[in-house]
Amino acid sequence: MASARQFHQIAGDFTMQNGSIKDPVIAYETWGELNFQKDNAVLLFTGLSPSAHAASSTLDHSTGWWEPMLGKGKPIDTDKYFVICINSLGSCFGSTGPASINPDTGSLYGLDFPVLTIEDIAIGGQAVIESLGIKRLYAVIGASMGAMTALAHSILYPEVAEGLVSISGTARARPFTIAIRSVQREMIRSDPTWNDGVYDSPPSMGMRLARKLGMLSYRSAAEFEQRFGRERVPEERQTGDSFDIDFEVESYLDAHAKKFIGSFDANCYLYLSRAMDLFDVADHGGSVAAGLSRVGAGRAMVIGVETDLLFPIDQQQEIVDGLNNGDREIEFHNLPSLQGHDAFLVDMDRFRPLICDFFNCSMNQPEQLRSI
Amino acid sequence: MASARQFHQIAGDFTMQNGSIKDPVIAYETWGELNFQKDNAVLLFTGLSPSAHAASSTLDHSTGWWEPMLGKGKPIDTDKYFVICINSLGSCFGSTGPASINPDTGSLYGLDFPVLTIEDIAIGGQAVIESLGIKRLYAVIGASMGAMTALAHSILYPEVAEGLVSISGTARARPFTIAIRSVQREMIRSDPTWNDGVYDSPPSMGMRLARKLGMLSYRSAAEFEQRFGRERVPEERQTGDSFDIDFEVESYLDAHAKKFIGSFDANCYLYLSRAMDLFDVADHGGSVAAGLSRVGAGRAMVIGVETDLLFPIDQQQEIVDGLNNGDREIEFHNLPSLQGHDAFLVDMDRFRPLICDFFNCSMNQPEQLRSI
Repeated sequence: MASARQFHQIAGDFTMQNGSIKDPVIAYETWGELNFQKDNAVLLFTGLSPSAHAASSTLDHSTGWWEPMLGKGKPIDTDKYFVICINSLGSCFGSTGPASINPDTGSLYGLDFPVLTIEDIAIGGQAVIESLGIKRLYAVIGASMGAMTALAHSILYPEVAEGLVSISGTARARPFTIAIRSVQREMIRSDPTWNDGVYDSPPSMGMRLARKLGMLSYRSAAEFEQRFGRERVPEERQTGDSFDIDFEVESYLDAHAKKFIGSFDANCYLYLSRAMDLFDVADHGGSVAAGLSRVGAGRAMVIGVETDLLFPIDQQQEIVDGLNNGDREIEFHNLPSLQGHDAFLVDMDRFRPLICDFFNCSMNQPEQLRSI
Repeated sequence: MASARQFHQIAGDFTMQNGSIKDPVIAYETWGELNFQKDNAVLLFTGLSPSAHAASSTLDHSTGWWEPMLGKGKPIDTDKYFVICINSLGSCFGSTGPASINPDTGSLYGLDFPVLTIEDIAIGGQAVIESLGIKRLYAVIGASMGAMTALAHSILYPEVAEGLVSISGTARARPFTIAIRSVQREMIRSDPTWNDGVYDSPPSMGMRLARKLGMLSYRSAAEFEQRFGRERVPEERQTGDSFDIDFEVESYLDAHAKKFIGSFDANCYLYLSRAMDLFDVADHGGSVAAGLSRVGAGRAMVIGVETDLLFPIDQQQEIVDGLNNGDREIEFHNLPSLQGHDAFLVDMDRFRPLICDFFNCSMNQPEQLRSI
């Protein structure tokens, strides 16, 4: 399959918050063209698991993870903007991470990779846009872990992004989500195949369980109720084992888990997951408010979802309160989507008009009419 | 340690919904005395994991799982009532279950135990009270799985209980909780030590993970926030492994999981967990409303907790709606406790007065004054 993936190598020692690595590479994809004034660039950070392939392009026709939102004539219109999506440092889709070769040893980094932070990921993204000659961004945008990274970027480089879009993110990881992620990591680390981070074949059991718990936290009870109710899988798919898949909701989790295993490296998962725990805007100035006061963007949009179990509305409100300094143009949208934390990937009818407005797209009106 | 545990053996073949077993035993404990009129008996069903030891007594001084609620001068005053707490059929604290010897083979039942239902547990409880010569109950009461069992009992034996108290229960398992339990079961079944249900030592890894996920679902994000925030464990308890316990909330989960391993049999856990999935009052009459219309109790109290992730308030409302037939005296309490599903074990200041009122206890006034 053709790839649109590009790479930026940061030459020499790259200092992370908790160590340093040599000559790391950041993978990214771009859409559209940087204009002459270089003022139409949009930097997109991702959630924990996606690659930089946010949308299809002439180089890679495969559907991207935010396909409905990004492209020609879409809410983030690539006829207008030059969009750069970053594969997070520490991930396994081209960027350097625990699954990469350590040039010092010739072996995989594995657990020798320094403890990763969201700030490290933001710095990696900044290195890419600097390599492209970009000094100012029209906006930095991200959802979930990507929203945390966009916040970190806006704090570390207040002069760079003119706009900030935070979707279902948080200014600091809270104990409930730390606990969920801790259990997910323990599932992986308890899998004998994980073998203290040195494995030839993936720790499938741990990854399967971690993904299933993830699916529980990414959606909502209300959505499950509407989609699955108490429906059983048809008899021909029942195995006769009473603890095997019986209800449709169990089958749904299993299908998603199977897709995930093998596509994501277990050590990378552990590092990115812990990076989310460690994130606290208060590290930049002593309090969340002080940290957020460093954000330079003149415009911000914060979107949250009422049914989000991971980053609920009060955490969106905390971001809004911190950003609301009187000078900044700020919007807050609290969406009644059923799909929980994942709504930004699914509930396009609600997200499309908001993103469109922020990026002054021209499709909003006809799209809304279409969805009626 | 002295035990107050008593046993009732059901002689001969005991027909369950999905098979039959021979001469099963139901373990139970009692407090107080059955009066001459035999109209002061209260039947208490438990959640998934407790034994019948709900409270201490002269025979067993150890603290029971509902110690503050049950005893002399307490909300369920054992000077007034004869209380019987049942160890669920299928559990491992004296009642017959997967961890018991199958008299036909001389080996443990293990996975040969018939698929268990909540109705089977209710029938086991009824056998105990019949063996004690009790024809009418002042009330049947339960929380969580115990509330489901109390509902099942009230439907199967409408003429027995005059009162019904359902705390944080549900009339039918919903897909979100089925999914949580499914992942818990898969954790246990994925542990190599589980060995398809034939193990000498317990599958500790699976049980540890299942309990941790349980703890996440039993409490609430708001409580975790209040108790733990982003507090770290002190340096002397840190191991230096960045994926090991770092935050206090991780330490809390670990401490609870350690207590659970070894105290509860893994196969029993699987059976009781699946029994909850299978529960649907609609099996009795075609709809939840039709099922609940069979309940005979003239008085009912339904208590739910706003922060309960497992059996949220709309499921309490569904029980209330089904019980509210115009003739029945019915109360519904929607409590703002922070402790989620577990609030009935913890938030005594809110639960005590309600239980006291229902059981006409004499302590309510002073107790309320005391808690101010």
